[in-house]
Amino acid sequence: MYPFTPGSYAPANGWYVAAFCNEIGEELLSRWILNQPVVLYRKGDGTAVAVEGRCPHRHYPLGASKRVGDAIQCGYHGITFDAGGKCTFVPSQQTVPGVYGIRAYPLVERGLWAWIWPGDPDKADESLIPDMTEIGYDLPGYYARPFYYHHVEGRYQLLNDNLLDLTHLGYLHASSIGTPDDAATPEEREVTDRYIRSRRYMRNTPPPPVMQERGWVEGPIDRISGMDFHFPGFHAGIGDVRVAEGQPRAGALLRSSRVWHAVTPATKTTTNYFFGMASPDRDSVDDAVEYLKPVLAEDIFATVEIEKIITTLDELPSELMLKSDGTAVLGRRALQRMMDAERAEREAAQ
Amino acid sequence: MYPFTPGSYAPANGWYVAAFCNEIGEELLSRWILNQPVVLYRKGDGTAVAVEGRCPHRHYPLGASKRVGDAIQCGYHGITFDAGGKCTFVPSQQTVPGVYGIRAYPLVERGLWAWIWPGDPDKADESLIPDMTEIGYDLPGYYARPFYYHHVEGRYQLLNDNLLDLTHLGYLHASSIGTPDDAATPEEREVTDRYIRSRRYMRNTPPPPVMQERGWVEGPIDRISGMDFHFPGFHAGIGDVRVAEGQPRAGALLRSSRVWHAVTPATKTTTNYFFGMASPDRDSVDDAVEYLKPVLAEDIFATVEIEKIITTLDELPSELMLKSDGTAVLGRRALQRMMDAERAEREAAQ
Amino acid sequence: MYPFTPGSYAPANGWYVAAFCNEIGEELLSRWILNQPVVLYRKGDGTAVAVEGRCPHRHYPLGASKRVGDAIQCGYHGITFDAGGKCTFVPSQQTVPGVYGIRAYPLVERGLWAWIWPGDPDKADESLIPDMTEIGYDLPGYYARPFYYHHVEGRYQLLNDNLLDLTHLGYLHASSIGTPDDAATPEEREVTDRYIRSRRYMRNTPPPPVMQERGWVEGPIDRISGMDFHFPGFHAGIGDVRVAEGQPRAGALLRSSRVWHAVTPATKTTTNYFFGMASPDRDSVDDAVEYLKPVLAEDIFATVEIEKIITTLDELPSELMLKSDGTAVLGRRALQRMMDAERAEREAAQ
Repeated sequence: MYPFTPGSYAPANGWYVAAFCNEIGEELLSRWILNQPVVLYRKGDGTAVAVEGRCPHRHYPLGASKRVGDAIQCGYHGITFDAGGKCTFVPSQQTVPGVYGIRAYPLVERGLWAWIWPGDPDKADESLIPDMTEIGYDLPGYYARPFYYHHVEGRYQLLNDNLLDLTHLGYLHASSIGTPDDAATPEEREVTDRYIRSRRYMRNTPPPPVMQERGWVEGPIDRISGMDFHFPGFHAGIGDVRVAEGQPRAGALLRSSRVWHAVTPATKTTTNYFFGMASPDRDSVDDAVEYLKPVLAEDIFATVEIEKIITTLDELPSELMLKSDGTAVLGRRALQRMMDAERAEREAAQ
Repeated sequence: MYPFTPGSYAPANGWYVAAFCNEIGEELLSRWILNQPVVLYRKGDGTAVAVEGRCPHRHYPLGASKRVGDAIQCGYHGITFDAGGKCTFVPSQQTVPGVYGIRAYPLVERGLWAWIWPGDPDKADESLIPDMTEIGYDLPGYYARPFYYHHVEGRYQLLNDNLLDLTHLGYLHASSIGTPDDAATPEEREVTDRYIRSRRYMRNTPPPPVMQERGWVEGPIDRISGMDFHFPGFHAGIGDVRVAEGQPRAGALLRSSRVWHAVTPATKTTTNYFFGMASPDRDSVDDAVEYLKPVLAEDIFATVEIEKIITTLDELPSELMLKSDGTAVLGRRALQRMMDAERAEREAAQ
Repeated sequence: MYPFTPGSYAPANGWYVAAFCNEIGEELLSRWILNQPVVLYRKGDGTAVAVEGRCPHRHYPLGASKRVGDAIQCGYHGITFDAGGKCTFVPSQQTVPGVYGIRAYPLVERGLWAWIWPGDPDKADESLIPDMTEIGYDLPGYYARPFYYHHVEGRYQLLNDNLLDLTHLGYLHASSIGTPDDAATPEEREVTDRYIRSRRYMRNTPPPPVMQERGWVEGPIDRISGMDFHFPGFHAGIGDVRVAEGQPRAGALLRSSRVWHAVTPATKTTTNYFFGMASPDRDSVDDAVEYLKPVLAEDIFATVEIEKIITTLDELPSELMLKSDGTAVLGRRALQRMMDAERAEREAAQ
């Protein structure tokens, strides 16, 4: 489906963010992930787990069920599954055949996030989780916190496309975090087999409105803005602001932030969207929770409105492709390649 | 469609509950039944009738139209149909061809219910209506009343499945009417060509929470719980509570109730659901109207949530079938057989 | 789709009302027209324009974007299109290839309305716009004003069918503007290649309820009621009331009104519906804005309810066709012919 080839929706073999770690606790958390209902919770020993969210007996939502110790007892007929997915109790039977069970998903907590592997568990290689150093998570002196979880009524790739093309900052976010220079500045790009890195180095540029309005920064600045797309669904951003060359204290670091957007398909046309941030200045991070709300709301507005348009149109005309779409195109291709490989494997297995 | 074979939805040749008798009066009552709009009303002489709810001229809802005597005058262009479905008046014409008309459905009031036959009227044999004695309606000294009509956003068979497997009582209704013994006790079953009877005889068992909380019953009880599924959409339940063997006054009847669930397909994925009850104790019946509300709400919650899951999933995996599903499987097969027979007949007729 | 042949939805080569002129101003107005998003606005020089409402880059709604002079700057990535649809600015590029652009629709203001041509612009012949004299717009001494714009949740042909069969006046609008004579009186009809004219001359007839209740008219009247359907989506109505023959002052004009209904497909199953009116008596026109609200609400109710019924039914049975449907049938055929011609042309071009 758009913007992928017909029948292609999302790669299954990859680490997606299922939740912020701090969302997972004693209570059962229901979430659709790659068009499957999933339940997340933390065992008595503190380990986070993810299991299928649908009882295989009559499809009742296990997330609306009951914890019994580390197990989930289906709220409908009481069939019970342990944290590994194994069925341990059927109220109407004395014995439980060993084949009874639900899927248990590989789930790894790293950084602020609980990473899930929706595909073939045998392929769930933890070294494929984005490297915490590479994403700027463990920078010394930086304070990181999760900001928002949003359930977005639009397909996930619209959010990936958004993040793969930061020329939108000066327009969609013209009143806050962007300036026209975000689009006008040439992009530098680095592509590996795990991520695509995009950077813009803006020299002697006016600060974005939010920096001016809040009195953080005056006069011309040098600004680095960039985003790394770690396949299949994680974007790590960088925003560094320094006194511009030629000014007194030229090169002094004025503001620094790392932002993380995680984009996880929920259903075919809805998305789990996670945003978090870090900065050396704890107050500025806490402050950002408020002033970034309308910024994220703009991205979500774009996603929802575009989803409505492409859903209503009979046929979606071919897109106008700009030079600035290079990164988004590479990002789409990376996902398409993963999906093609999975399909080839499925077909070979048949 | 799930859980039936592709193309199978609901048997048409059978008596379904269209309404409680007390819902039908002078005013036109609109209701979808087996994916057809139907209008129910009571003629001047008191007879309840059911006719097609769609004007054949321009599909205007006849239920949103006007009674003129015993006839319905379409609210759009005034075309008028008598209670037998015959067109009696076209405002723009002097004469009305005899072929003009709408469907009139066989409708029979019996017990608390008005029974409709959505299929071939020539096959509408009243003796196929569930026997009032068999369903425990006319037990001497029992007071019966209709409780609730609910329009449920889920396909009807989910409610049939619910009622065909009372092992859910101790889990979905764990806080009210069930205990784990409802699942753990072996089921006794009787199958005829008109119904499936299921019974559980629980001996020396603790009373369900609602009985304890309300102080009705103390100490161990003997309890009979059961449900008869009269094809295609009526469930008659029994609940008798006696002092347990070995106790003083052993065998004395403490509580007795009969409950009736009628499940009538509305559209493909929505259901008309009727619940009523009887007991020798009139106050306890009236009292139950309140305390059973959350119980029914649990069944409806399960139905609605399961409908969402099966509608969202691309492919529904095969279900885990338990020993306790025997009754539900027989119930599904009975309906499938009816649908297969109707299809064979349609094909033979072509 | 119903009531047209499969695959037929709406003629594209025709003038439809996109908006009342007074709806179009400096601000961008978003409207779906024939299943395409469209933006309407007025240029600095006062000219009203209509352009595609979807940015060809990433499908962002241009109606939710920003005016920059006479151009629209996409609210997402800042791509800018002038009022003629030509792309004039891409923030990330120095040059803009001449092929970049969006559709600009022929748009003509005439009377109260802005007329759009959604089809092949080369065929947009302004002489095909309904003639202002023929529709009674420029009657000397008549005061005309737009009344309502409604977005109706039903397919457009249901509203055309409504207006092509005024026998509904005495039933759907029995409490206000119609009497049974609207249906019982024979219809006179004139058909040209541009419109179908329908008239009913009611002699010595009681006034409709609204005229009686408001004390406008007493005793028997002669009444002319009619509607002209200008293909593909405009209905011009006439309502003249005179003292009936045989009464004192026989033939004196008591009330006179012209009404205009414009019916423009929005999406496949929703409609843009515009109503306006004129009369020699300015106060009576202003007064009508209030008392006609429930009348239009009845037409919309019929449309929405019928849409629900035909959408829910698996198969739509054939319609009962009455003698009074002659005009509606001719109207449907006129549109079907237009669609057939367009299809033949598309096929020939391939």
